[in-house]
Amino acid sequence: MSATLRSIAISAKPRISRPSSGGWPVRTTTERFNETDRRHMTAALTLARRGLGNVAPNPAVGCVIVREGIVVGRGWTQPGGRPHAETEALARAGALARGATAYVTLEPCSHHGKTGPCAEALAKAGIARVVAATIDPDPRVAGRGIALLKAAGIVAEVGCLEQEAQRVNAGFFGRLDGRPLVTLKLATSLDGCIATRTGDSQWITGEQARARAHLMRAQHDAIMIGVGTAIADNPQLTCRLPGLAQRSPVRVVADGRLRLPLTHYLVRTAREVPTVLFCAPGNSPERRNAYAQAGVEVVEVAADACARPDPAGMMKHLAEKGVTRVMVEGGGQLAASVIHARLVDLLFWFRGPVVIGEEGRAAVAALGLDKLARAPTYALDAVERLGDDLLEIYRLSR
Amino acid sequence: MSATLRSIAISAKPRISRPSSGGWPVRTTTERFNETDRRHMTAALTLARRGLGNVAPNPAVGCVIVREGIVVGRGWTQPGGRPHAETEALARAGALARGATAYVTLEPCSHHGKTGPCAEALAKAGIARVVAATIDPDPRVAGRGIALLKAAGIVAEVGCLEQEAQRVNAGFFGRLDGRPLVTLKLATSLDGCIATRTGDSQWITGEQARARAHLMRAQHDAIMIGVGTAIADNPQLTCRLPGLAQRSPVRVVADGRLRLPLTHYLVRTAREVPTVLFCAPGNSPERRNAYAQAGVEVVEVAADACARPDPAGMMKHLAEKGVTRVMVEGGGQLAASVIHARLVDLLFWFRGPVVIGEEGRAAVAALGLDKLARAPTYALDAVERLGDDLLEIYRLSR
Repeated sequence: MSATLRSIAISAKPRISRPSSGGWPVRTTTERFNETDRRHMTAALTLARRGLGNVAPNPAVGCVIVREGIVVGRGWTQPGGRPHAETEALARAGALARGATAYVTLEPCSHHGKTGPCAEALAKAGIARVVAATIDPDPRVAGRGIALLKAAGIVAEVGCLEQEAQRVNAGFFGRLDGRPLVTLKLATSLDGCIATRTGDSQWITGEQARARAHLMRAQHDAIMIGVGTAIADNPQLTCRLPGLAQRSPVRVVADGRLRLPLTHYLVRTAREVPTVLFCAPGNSPERRNAYAQAGVEVVEVAADACARPDPAGMMKHLAEKGVTRVMVEGGGQLAASVIHARLVDLLFWFRGPVVIGEEGRAAVAALGLDKLARAPTYALDAVERLGDDLLEIYRLSR
Repeated sequence: MSATLRSIAISAKPRISRPSSGGWPVRTTTERFNETDRRHMTAALTLARRGLGNVAPNPAVGCVIVREGIVVGRGWTQPGGRPHAETEALARAGALARGATAYVTLEPCSHHGKTGPCAEALAKAGIARVVAATIDPDPRVAGRGIALLKAAGIVAEVGCLEQEAQRVNAGFFGRLDGRPLVTLKLATSLDGCIATRTGDSQWITGEQARARAHLMRAQHDAIMIGVGTAIADNPQLTCRLPGLAQRSPVRVVADGRLRLPLTHYLVRTAREVPTVLFCAPGNSPERRNAYAQAGVEVVEVAADACARPDPAGMMKHLAEKGVTRVMVEGGGQLAASVIHARLVDLLFWFRGPVVIGEEGRAAVAALGLDKLARAPTYALDAVERLGDDLLEIYRLSR
């Protein structure tokens, strides 16, 4: 059966709503889908998010199987990327899958990997209808999953809560274009400072905001900081939340001149948590070797006149290594670099209700801007109150 | 009758919940008042706010008269402070006031001014019950209004939505302590800049935010800016909103060394809109006289080593002149002065979704802070979305 299914020709290139790297197209969900469809897809998207930070380079997918209005199976992508969400949900549904509808946040796969394709598994289980939020732009799938379902006589529809689904997997989609999703997280005073002139920064934001930032770490595949921050703050870059300590992501330091001390916490623990140093060309082989001996991966990328590693080059390397979601935590120089390179897809700005004044340390170093019209602009997505603080969430706008 | 009423002795000092200048005591409305009372008082507070910026040095009061559940009269303090809200509402209610309840946002006055006291007018009209939000701390009233009502056989109660009422008249209350309410309004980028390094600032925030700032001007008695901003931006400091142009407040410039050109718009139009210059000691009598000839009031106050006028001194003078609500609009130096002096009662922070970087002009100049624990801290009151921008409203916290 699988041979037959695999041989189905795609008559025309499917209309893939693959987002461009700069932002997502705003699409109104078509009226084909009713309130019930949207409700089940919303549940599937919530399940999908559980995988974020834990499944790279795979997409984080959620699946809900509904039979006669009753949810009979739920699943999401498991750590490392397998089993897939559909496999999990089908296993829970068992014989109840027959005649049911499967809501999947991404088109089911059509290619044989370690296991058979999900589209085939859905057909075998007797699923009658599949609602997918969006097409999988992976060239090995790209509409073939839907075609396979239709060929098996299944009603297969695409586009329910498509925009939301594209946002959930923005990192996976972006990586196919050669770069991960970049989230810049900053925690500042009302006037945009991250510390007083003496460096005092504990704490500009309160406990709730800091816990939220730790949760964000768990939802990313890599955390990147500049070497100045690494030396000044000596951060562990782990996710210190109950039950999530195992989800601490890859640690990345932008360190053009390899100034990070070999005795630094991040170097000493590099065998426990993968650690990457990006440096400029021209560092001595001895220095690079010393890090390598400690288990640190040293990667040379192009750099500017001040030996600051090119942010696009760093992101490209991380994407090649399978990273789909990078969280940049500062300091001011690295924040300015990624902002200036227009690489920030999501801006999470935590704001404590204090004023520090212009002598304080700026969250964003110089951008060399003269004209306001050229300033990087974002689109406000949401504002949350976290104790005494605000969390403002922005998306790249232009 | 009025002689009898006036001769009533107050047996004990009434418990006046007069707020201290730093912040308002948080008081839970007592359970004496039910949902209906709170609803009518909310309406009265909405009427009261209409007077803000238009009634100084008087309080902005609202009054709603309710008979058998039906609103029969509404009134609010008229421009300049008279007629009072109660007079207006009673005039509308006419004979229907007999047996009705009057909701007043401030204790009715008990002293004879240009007209008889409102407490007496309410009694004469046959009002059966008066609900006042808060006591009038004016030493000429201070509980005597309530005592007068009670002596006339009226049920008189105080404390319904007291905190809200104290906030509405914070400027009036504060002025009795020798200083007006100070609102600092800033419009910045996400990282706290008011312009690029070249001074380009049009526009960091959008149309809705700017219209809101103009409305704020109409609700204040005076607008204060620093001389640097006056010269750089050449602002008119008027309220340019349809129907509100007549409500443009007194214009105040902090100008220690009297640098404002005599040809400046604010000087040239000083005979149309009252304009005050605060300067440091030691300016030449000739220079001061030149402004005076143009109709500008020049006031000498104490100053710091850089000849910056002492903000507390400026506020004290404005309070003496009858100003109850001052809006400070920047620039960075004046903002830092009022923040440093802990004079900012309300902070209205408009935030446009752009990033300028540390070379940009800071909204708040140096505060000389080393320790974060000493940073001025505010309490978040509200956040509003205005188009693409945010308006964050804070109150002084410590």
